Amino acid sequence: MMASSDKVLAAGRRVVLTALAVFPLLAAPALAQTPATDPLPSWNDTATKTAIIAFVERVTKQGSPDLVPPAERIATFDNDGTLWAEQPIYFQLAFALDRVKALAALHPEWKDKEPFASLLKGDLKGALAGGERAIFEIITVTHSGMTTDEFEKIVRDWITTAKHPVTGRLYTEMVYQPMLELLAYLRGNGFKTFIVSGGGIDFMRVFAERVYGVPPEQVIGSSGKLAFEFRDSSPILMKLPDLNFNDDKTGKPVGIQMHIGRQPIAAFGNSDGDLQMFEWAKGGGGVRFALLVHHTDAEREWAYDRSSSIGRLDKALDTAQAMGWTVVDMKNDWKKIFPFGSK
Amino acid sequence: MMASSDKVLAAGRRVVLTALAVFPLLAAPALAQTPATDPLPSWNDTATKTAIIAFVERVTKQGSPDLVPPAERIATFDNDGTLWAEQPIYFQLAFALDRVKALAALHPEWKDKEPFASLLKGDLKGALAGGERAIFEIITVTHSGMTTDEFEKIVRDWITTAKHPVTGRLYTEMVYQPMLELLAYLRGNGFKTFIVSGGGIDFMRVFAERVYGVPPEQVIGSSGKLAFEFRDSSPILMKLPDLNFNDDKTGKPVGIQMHIGRQPIAAFGNSDGDLQMFEWAKGGGGVRFALLVHHTDAEREWAYDRSSSIGRLDKALDTAQAMGWTVVDMKNDWKKIFPFGSK
Repeated sequence: MMASSDKVLAAGRRVVLTALAVFPLLAAPALAQTPATDPLPSWNDTATKTAIIAFVERVTKQGSPDLVPPAERIATFDNDGTLWAEQPIYFQLAFALDRVKALAALHPEWKDKEPFASLLKGDLKGALAGGERAIFEIITVTHSGMTTDEFEKIVRDWITTAKHPVTGRLYTEMVYQPMLELLAYLRGNGFKTFIVSGGGIDFMRVFAERVYGVPPEQVIGSSGKLAFEFRDSSPILMKLPDLNFNDDKTGKPVGIQMHIGRQPIAAFGNSDGDLQMFEWAKGGGGVRFALLVHHTDAEREWAYDRSSSIGRLDKALDTAQAMGWTVVDMKNDWKKIFPFGSK
Repeated sequence: MMASSDKVLAAGRRVVLTALAVFPLLAAPALAQTPATDPLPSWNDTATKTAIIAFVERVTKQGSPDLVPPAERIATFDNDGTLWAEQPIYFQLAFALDRVKALAALHPEWKDKEPFASLLKGDLKGALAGGERAIFEIITVTHSGMTTDEFEKIVRDWITTAKHPVTGRLYTEMVYQPMLELLAYLRGNGFKTFIVSGGGIDFMRVFAERVYGVPPEQVIGSSGKLAFEFRDSSPILMKLPDLNFNDDKTGKPVGIQMHIGRQPIAAFGNSDGDLQMFEWAKGGGGVRFALLVHHTDAEREWAYDRSSSIGRLDKALDTAQAMGWTVVDMKNDWKKIFPFGSK
C-alpha cells in the first residue's frame, strides 16, 4: 500500500497527465514529452524499462505513425504474481482456509470429510493432496451460500485484518511497487487498465479500486453463478455453488472479449495461465506489448518458475523468449519490490 | 443517426461538461448549475423531464445531502424499445432473417426444415409460429460458426446498408433523440452509461460507440459461448452455437453484477424484460431513479404494451405505477422521436 502522501502525489500526477491527454493544446509539447519526474522510479534503468517507455511513446505520442486512439488503449493485467505476490499460497486460498476455520463450528461433518478434515487439523499439505478438486471444494463452500453484499463484507473484514504468514503485512501491502507505478503511468497516458485474473471477480473487486485504482467494472475474473431473488421484499443476488466462468488460460481471451469487446494492445502476466492472454493481445494488428514478470529474487521476494505449483511459469517463458516478448527479471529490473520494501 | 454537425456539437458539449466535472474549480459554479442551454431540448416541459433533472441534481450537486461520488454514478439502459425502436420486429431479428436469406444457398436442407422453410418462402408469421424455439434456431445459425472479427464485419456491412421496412431509414437512424440527449446529459454529469440488453452483446457493440457514445466495454448483452483457437498461426475467437448468457429479466441484475460489480443508481427500460433491472437499481440505498418508456404514440412511432409480443409491457407497467417510478408517455413527453423526425 502506498503511503498517503505518495498516493496524493500519484493521484496528482494522474490528474495532470489525464489533463494533458484530454487537452493536448493546453500543454507545451516539450513538457508532455519529457516529464520532469521519472514515471517509473522503482524500475532500474535496464532494457525492460526502456522497452516499456518506448512502447508507450510509440502508441501515444502525437505524430507517431503507430499512434493508437485513446479508446483502443486497453491494457490487461493478471493479478496473482503480477500485481501482488502469490507465495507461499495464493492469497485468495489463504482467505478460503481462514473461512473454513471460521465456519467449522457450523459444519460438524467436516471433521470426517476431506479436504476439510486435514485442514482443520492444520495439515494443509494433506488437504491440498486432493489437487484441484480439493481446492475447488474449499473455494465453493467459502464463496457461495451468501449474497454478493454479504460476501463483500466478509472479504472486506478479512483483507483489512489478515496478515501474510511470512512478512506479517496486510495482503494489500504485498503489491508490487513497480507495477503500481506502471498502472499509473499507463492511465496517465490514456490507457484503460483492466485486471484479468483466474482469481475470483467478487473477491478482487473489494480492494482493486483502493489498491490498484482499477474500478469494479474493469475487473475480470473467475465467477460462480448468481441468482436474483427477493429476501424480506429486498432484491438480492445469491452466490450459488456452481462455476460460472473460469478466467484462466484460454478463458482469459474469452473473458476479455465478453467484458471488453476489444483486443488489448498490452498485456501483463507472470505464469502459464497468462499465455493465451499474451497471444490474444499480440495477435491484433499494429504495435502490441507483452510483459512477463519472472520471479527471480529469492531474497527480496520469491524465486520460482517451471516447477512451482503456484504460478507455474514454463511454456509461457519459452514462448516469451522465442517471440522476444519483454521479460522482467525481478532481481535486476526492480529497484524496490513492495511499497514497504522487501520480504 | 445525428447529422455530423449535431454530432460535433454533442461531442463538444460532452467535452465541456466532462471538463467541468473533472476540473470543477475551473468553472464558475453558476455556470455549472444553470446551463445556458437546455440539456434535454427534445423533452417537453412535463413532470417527466422535471423528475429526470431533479434526480440528476440531487445526486450530483455540490452540497446536496444525496451527493453520489462519480465512481458510483452508474446508469444502465435497455436497448430495444428504450434507445432505438423495436417494431415491427426486433432489429437484430431483422438482421438474422436477412442473414438466413443470404446463407440459404449454402444450406439446401433449409428448404425442408422449419423455421427456415417458411422464412425462405417469405412467410415470416409461419416461421415465427415456432415461438422462442424458432427464434433461437434462427439466431444460432446466423450468430455462430464464424470468428468474432468475421461477425463484426458482417454486422457492420448490414447495419450501414439495411433499411427499416416502414421508414426506409438505416436502423441506426431509428434511435430516440430524447434518449441520446439523456445519455449525454448523464455523462456530462459524471455518470458512466451502460447498455444492459437482451440483445446480442457482439451485435450491439458494432454500433453502440458511434451511435450512443457507449464503448464496447460498457455494453452488456446476451451472448453465445466462445472458443479460443489458432487458425493459420493466428489467434481467433470462434462463436459457438451454444448459449452462454441470456441477459433478460432476472439475467439483467446478474449481468450487471458480472460486468459492473456495482448496483446502478439509475435504470432505463421499456418492457417486462427490464423489471428486475429496475428492482435491482431501486433496491440499493440512497436516492435511486427508474424510468420506464411507454410507447403511446401510434402516429409518430408505435403504440403497444400489454398484448404486444415485441416489447411486452404489462407487469412492469403495473409495478412502475404502484411504486411511483417515472413513466415516459412518449406522445406527451417527447417533442421529437427520431433525429430525422417521426415515422
